Amino acid sequence: MTDVPATLVLEARRVLDGRIRRTPTEESPDLSRLAGVPVFLKLENLQLTGSFKIRGAFFVMSRLSPEERRRGIVTCSAGNHGKAVAFVSRELGIPAEIHVPRSVDESKYRGMLDLGARVVRSDCDGFDDTERIARAEAERTGRNFLTAFDDLLVLAANGGTLAAEVVEDCPEARAFLLPVGGAGLAGGFAAYAKAALPGCRIVGCQHALSPALALSLERGEAVLTLPPVATTAGGLEGGIGRTGFEVLRHRIDGVALLTEEEIFEAVRFILDRHQYLIEPSSAVTVAALRTGKAGRLGVPTVAVISGRNVALPTLCRILAA
Amino acid sequence: MTDVPATLVLEARRVLDGRIRRTPTEESPDLSRLAGVPVFLKLENLQLTGSFKIRGAFFVMSRLSPEERRRGIVTCSAGNHGKAVAFVSRELGIPAEIHVPRSVDESKYRGMLDLGARVVRSDCDGFDDTERIARAEAERTGRNFLTAFDDLLVLAANGGTLAAEVVEDCPEARAFLLPVGGAGLAGGFAAYAKAALPGCRIVGCQHALSPALALSLERGEAVLTLPPVATTAGGLEGGIGRTGFEVLRHRIDGVALLTEEEIFEAVRFILDRHQYLIEPSSAVTVAALRTGKAGRLGVPTVAVISGRNVALPTLCRILAA
Repeated sequence: MTDVPATLVLEARRVLDGRIRRTPTEESPDLSRLAGVPVFLKLENLQLTGSFKIRGAFFVMSRLSPEERRRGIVTCSAGNHGKAVAFVSRELGIPAEIHVPRSVDESKYRGMLDLGARVVRSDCDGFDDTERIARAEAERTGRNFLTAFDDLLVLAANGGTLAAEVVEDCPEARAFLLPVGGAGLAGGFAAYAKAALPGCRIVGCQHALSPALALSLERGEAVLTLPPVATTAGGLEGGIGRTGFEVLRHRIDGVALLTEEEIFEAVRFILDRHQYLIEPSSAVTVAALRTGKAGRLGVPTVAVISGRNVALPTLCRILAA
Repeated sequence: MTDVPATLVLEARRVLDGRIRRTPTEESPDLSRLAGVPVFLKLENLQLTGSFKIRGAFFVMSRLSPEERRRGIVTCSAGNHGKAVAFVSRELGIPAEIHVPRSVDESKYRGMLDLGARVVRSDCDGFDDTERIARAEAERTGRNFLTAFDDLLVLAANGGTLAAEVVEDCPEARAFLLPVGGAGLAGGFAAYAKAALPGCRIVGCQHALSPALALSLERGEAVLTLPPVATTAGGLEGGIGRTGFEVLRHRIDGVALLTEEEIFEAVRFILDRHQYLIEPSSAVTVAALRTGKAGRLGVPTVAVISGRNVALPTLCRILAA
């Protein structure tokens, strides 16, 4: 069973301490009433750069050798990882080239440019095709390719450190709702949580049109690519990472598949009741509760809210729907 | 010159430590470019209960005697103070009766009810008339009336502790843009900042239709009441507090008056560039920068963002404007 070493999570926490925000956990009275158990939100939407991705980007880039730093790195991102890499690139003085799908969210795209990164917009709509181009470019020029999710270091930092905070701040929780895209967050989180709280429940939440985890569990192997779909939840689009899936496959207790409409409703709900803007990709966990697709929980539950990066026109569309 | 004792701010910080959030300060690249100096946002919109008001409510209520706690308190609020009092009432087990103007923001109203407080909606649209009713009710029933702003304890906790955090987290700042309603925040903040950084610049930001500070400075005395006006910035509506004005009058360097349209634009700007929902009352400081009404600053500047409580229909209206 693939594992995320606890020492790696500890090391990531040490590196990140004081460099990123310790995001709060807050109860949702409405969701608690609905679920019949206390429900808490881990507000990673309040993180620096607007998402959890800064955890992995900072940790991995801080471990590069002086020579690797000098050459710079190449990466591919639907937005949040790119914004995080752009931020860390400026902080640590490491040149970064970020490839983004043509369909990238405008606020994320501008966020990367604002931070001074070199951003290359691809001719492809999907994440997977764009990543192939970025990997080839890294190889051609002898630079490190920084994966957005498929790496134990990324799992430890993105999901592991997040889980460690949740377990500390909300020790009564025994069920965790996690968004699953490439599974960097979900894999690292599940590994840490199941080790710390054996018997806790892990529910992966995905877009119904891009259900890579559900398909992978059915087939017994990671579905690494999926055809692009039109969604505002760009972080949930495409295949699952091999590493994340190998970690998740023996730790996942349920998968909830949410439609675009259900995701929109969850974004509106959080705006209305908690007054936070959250992005569609991160609203799947709330939608899983609102629709009942998370299943019967029966224990105190934490829904991870992974980010807040939404372009204003997209928000207007969500509110008008 | 009326002063806010530094010892009172220290005491408030001690009481609040670990009970409220230490909200972050973040740079705004767009506002920095526009102003030609580094501009930072103090993100008190991320505070528990959605605004700075929890600072004063917690501090004042924690100082009540056992007998006063038993009898409970009465207060009046346009929303944020009420939400804060409702939260603290539950935390400390002190019965609270909260009078709100008929025009109260729906999200704030529901927030108070959700927290289990007794909420009385008045027949008056304005804050000042509603407050008169609440004070009479407190007197009639022998309970403490908790002012939302007109009190040195409230100034020390609401504005003083906020300023102390800003000075620690952003030591280079020498200009501060503050929203001014009753002047609990602005008075306490200005007193602390001018003592810590003599020569720093304080700009008060108000609604153009409810310019109590500007009028008070002209007349040389506090304008305690103003006729109600139709605005989504309920926290800025009505007169100024006597205590806050006496503290502010010798410390204020400029007043910026913003229109409803300019405030709406600032709410959209923060949603677009920072992905935070902020309430109209708190958007005046950003609007003062966006419009140039803050004047030439020439030094690193902090704009205080005081809260995030906006009802969803109001947000839809702001986005459609």
